[in-house]
Amino acid sequence: MVDNQNTTSVEERSSRQELRELVRSQLQMFLEQGHFQGAKTLLVPVQPADAAEAIEGLPQTLHAIAFRLLPKDKSSEIYEHLDSKVQQTLIEEFKNQELRDLIDKMSPDDRVRLLDELPVNLVRRLLKELSSSERQATSLLLGYEPNTAGRIMTPEYVSLKEHFTINRAFERIRSLANITETIYALYVTDSARHLTGILSLRDLVTAEPEQTIGEIMTEDVVFVHTSTDQEEVARTIQRYDFLAVPVVDSEQRLVGIVTVDDIIDVLERETTEDIYALGAVQADRENYFQMSLFRISKRRVSWLLILLLTNILTGGIINANEAILERVVSLAMFIPLLIGTGGNVGTQSSTVVIRGLSTDKIRDTISWPIIRREALVGIVLGLMMGALVVVGAYLVQRDWAVAVTVGLSLWGITTLAATSGAALPMLFKSRGFDPALMSAPFIATCVDVLGVLIYFYVARLLINV
Amino acid sequence: MVDNQNTTSVEERSSRQELRELVRSQLQMFLEQGHFQGAKTLLVPVQPADAAEAIEGLPQTLHAIAFRLLPKDKSSEIYEHLDSKVQQTLIEEFKNQELRDLIDKMSPDDRVRLLDELPVNLVRRLLKELSSSERQATSLLLGYEPNTAGRIMTPEYVSLKEHFTINRAFERIRSLANITETIYALYVTDSARHLTGILSLRDLVTAEPEQTIGEIMTEDVVFVHTSTDQEEVARTIQRYDFLAVPVVDSEQRLVGIVTVDDIIDVLERETTEDIYALGAVQADRENYFQMSLFRISKRRVSWLLILLLTNILTGGIINANEAILERVVSLAMFIPLLIGTGGNVGTQSSTVVIRGLSTDKIRDTISWPIIRREALVGIVLGLMMGALVVVGAYLVQRDWAVAVTVGLSLWGITTLAATSGAALPMLFKSRGFDPALMSAPFIATCVDVLGVLIYFYVARLLINV
Repeated sequence: MVDNQNTTSVEERSSRQELRELVRSQLQMFLEQGHFQGAKTLLVPVQPADAAEAIEGLPQTLHAIAFRLLPKDKSSEIYEHLDSKVQQTLIEEFKNQELRDLIDKMSPDDRVRLLDELPVNLVRRLLKELSSSERQATSLLLGYEPNTAGRIMTPEYVSLKEHFTINRAFERIRSLANITETIYALYVTDSARHLTGILSLRDLVTAEPEQTIGEIMTEDVVFVHTSTDQEEVARTIQRYDFLAVPVVDSEQRLVGIVTVDDIIDVLERETTEDIYALGAVQADRENYFQMSLFRISKRRVSWLLILLLTNILTGGIINANEAILERVVSLAMFIPLLIGTGGNVGTQSSTVVIRGLSTDKIRDTISWPIIRREALVGIVLGLMMGALVVVGAYLVQRDWAVAVTVGLSLWGITTLAATSGAALPMLFKSRGFDPALMSAPFIATCVDVLGVLIYFYVARLLINV
Repeated sequence: MVDNQNTTSVEERSSRQELRELVRSQLQMFLEQGHFQGAKTLLVPVQPADAAEAIEGLPQTLHAIAFRLLPKDKSSEIYEHLDSKVQQTLIEEFKNQELRDLIDKMSPDDRVRLLDELPVNLVRRLLKELSSSERQATSLLLGYEPNTAGRIMTPEYVSLKEHFTINRAFERIRSLANITETIYALYVTDSARHLTGILSLRDLVTAEPEQTIGEIMTEDVVFVHTSTDQEEVARTIQRYDFLAVPVVDSEQRLVGIVTVDDIIDVLERETTEDIYALGAVQADRENYFQMSLFRISKRRVSWLLILLLTNILTGGIINANEAILERVVSLAMFIPLLIGTGGNVGTQSSTVVIRGLSTDKIRDTISWPIIRREALVGIVLGLMMGALVVVGAYLVQRDWAVAVTVGLSLWGITTLAATSGAALPMLFKSRGFDPALMSAPFIATCVDVLGVLIYFYVARLLINV
C-alpha cells in the first residue's frame, strides 16, 4: 500500500519547510551580527505561525531578543503560536510593561490556555499585569471546569438587537471588528442578554437596507451550555457546519462563543487522548515528546504493571496445568498463537467500537445489534482460522487430538474476544468511564487469561491424560 | 478515572436527542396519516442536519415521501447530510426531473463526494441529469486523484481584481453570496487568473470606502496545489487558523478553495483510518457499522492471517526448544508474561510515535533523538519490571536460575520492544508507506518472535541443561 499522494505532499511540505528554515537561519544571522533592523524587516511579511516556528528554532539565548523585535500588533498573535515551553521562558525574561502589552492583547480564550499550562507563580504574576477588564474576562473563563465550553469560549463576540436596521448593524460590526474573534457569526440578544436569534454576516450582506435584524435572523438557535464538554461542542460545530457556536449560562444568557479554529485543536487533542488510551499510554495536556524520561516512564509504567499482573495470572493458569503440559509438551507451542490471535481479534473489535463511540457513529450507549454482529464476526473469523489451524497443527504434530484442541480453542477464543472487545467499551461508557480505557493491551491481556483457561479445558476434554 | 464532564454532556446530548426523536415520531405519524401539510410545517424550522436524521430514522418506505415534502431551497442541503445508503435508495426512486433539481443545486464538492460513494450506473445517470456548467465543474473535480485538494475543493469562490474599489467589491460579493460556499475569504487574481493576493470580508468591512482591493489585500498567500494530499490541506488550515485555503494548478492559477467545515470531516476520516490501522483493521471510505458481515470478515481476516503466520513462527521457536522445556517445564508459565509485556511496551512506543508523525509533532521522517529516547524509556521500564519479576518468579518457582532468566529476558525484550516500536513506523514512513500500518498487533507479534528467541537464549546460558 504505497501512498502516492503522500510522496507529493512530502515534497511540497519539505519545500515550504525549506523556506521556513531559510527564514530561521537568516534571522539567526541578522541577530548574531546585531543587525536588528534587518531581522525586523525579514519578519514583516511572514505568517504568524511561521514566524513563531522560526523563533522556536533559534538558540534559546536569542528567543527574547527576536521576540522584542516583532511589530507590536503582531506579537500577541505570534506568541499564541509559540510552544508552551518557549512561552514560559519568554515570560520569565519579560519586564512587567512588556508583559502587560503582550498579555492584554491576547484573546481571552488563548490567554486561559496559556495560564492553564504555566506554573502557579507565573500565573499570579500574569494576572496582576492584566487590565481590570481583561482580568475579569480571564477570571470568568478560569471559573469554569477544564475541558468545558466555558473554558474554551471567548467572551468577545458581536451581539445585535432585533430592532437594529441593517445599517446600524454594519456600523456596530465595523466598530467591533478589531476586537472580536469573529464578525461572521452574529448573535441577537434581548435586554436581559438572553439569546433570541442568530444570523451570519452573509445574511446581513444580502439583506435589503430597510430590513431589521429581527426580520432576517434565525430563531432556531443551536447553542451549548458553559458546562458542556468541549468534545461535545466540537461535535456540534462539526454536525451543523458552523463557524462558531454560542455558549449560554444556566439562565440561557449569552456569555461567549466557541469558534471553529479552536475546535479543530480540541478534536486533535481529544483524539490524541483516545489514541494514547488505546495504546495504554496515560495522556495529559503536555506534549509527550517534551516530557522528561522520568515522567514518561511514570506515565507508562502504571498500565504496564496492571497488565503484568494479568499476565502473571495467565502464567499461574499455565502453571496449574503443568501436569498436562509435562505429558503433552507440544501443547506449549500453540499458546502464543492462541492468545496472540485472540488479542488481535479483540483489539480489532474494541478499536472499531471505541472509534464509533467517540465519533457518534454509535449513538446508543449499549448497542445490542453491534455486540451481536461483532460476536457473529468473531464466530466467522474463528471458523476460518480454526479450520486452517487444525490442518496446520496436525501437519506439525501428527496428533489429531492436539490439532482439534487447538482449532476448537481458537474458535472459542476468537468469538469471546470479538464479543468482549465490543461489549467492554460500551459497558465502560455506560458506567461513566472513558471507553478508550478499554485499550488494545487491556482487552488482549484479558483475552489471554480466558484463552489459556479455554485451551486447557478443551485439552482435558479431548486428550486423555 | 470517572469523567464528570461526560456525564453532563451525555445528559445534554440525550435531551437534544429526545427532541430529535420527537420530531422523527411526529413526522412518521403525520406521514402515515397522510397529513402531508402537517409534516411539511413540522420540518420548516428544523436544522438540515437534524431533518436528515429524522428522515433516516423513518421506515424505508417513507424516505422518499418525506424527502419530497421538503422545501426546494432546503432539500439539497438536507440531502447532503443524509447517510450515503439513504442517498442511494432515494436516487433510485427519483424521477429525472427531481434528480436534476436536487443534484444541480448541491455544491460541486459535496456532489463529488456523493458520486464517489455511489455505484457506477447511478453515477452515469446522475451526470446525465446535470446542467452543462455543473457537469463541467463536477468533471473537473472528478479528474483529480482521490484524497487530494483537487477532489475536495469547490470551484465556487469569490474572486476580485486589484483595481476594484471597496464598494465594487461589496457589489460583487452581494451578487455571488447565494452561490458561493463562503464569502468570508476573498481571492484576488490577475487577468490570467493567477492568484496575487487574499483578503477577508473583515478586512473589507473595516476598510475606508476610497481604498482599492490592491491596497488592503495580503500578498503573502498560503496556498496548496490540486495534487496536495487532503490531510496536508487540513494541516495547513489548522496551522494558520484559516476559514479556507486557495487551491492552484501547476501554473499557479486559482482553480478552487477548500473550506474549514470540509476539513474537519477530512481530519476525522483520516484519524479513523489511522486508528483502524493501529487496531489492524483495514479501513475504507465506507462506514464500518453499515458493512455486511462478509465484507467485515474479509477486511479483518487478511491482517489476522499475517499475524497468525508470525504466531506460528513463535510457536515453531518454542517447539524447537522442546528439549529445554521438557526439563524445565516451569519456563512455559512465563512465556505469556514476557511476550505480553513486550507487546504492551512496543504498542505504547508505536502509538506515541505514529500519533506524533500524523499530527506533525515529529517533523523529521527519521528522528534519532526520539528513537534514542524511546530506547532509554525501554531500558528504564525493563529495569523496573525486570527487578519485580525476578523476585516474583523466585517466590513462585524457588529457582534463582529461572527467576534471573525471566528478569533478564524481560529487560531485553522491553528495550527491544520500545526501540522497534519507535523505529519501525518511522522507517515505514521514510519508505513512503503509511506509518500507521505498523499497528499495535503487528509490533506485538514481531516482539513475540524475538521475545521467545531471547528467552530461550538466556535460558540456555543460565540454566544448565
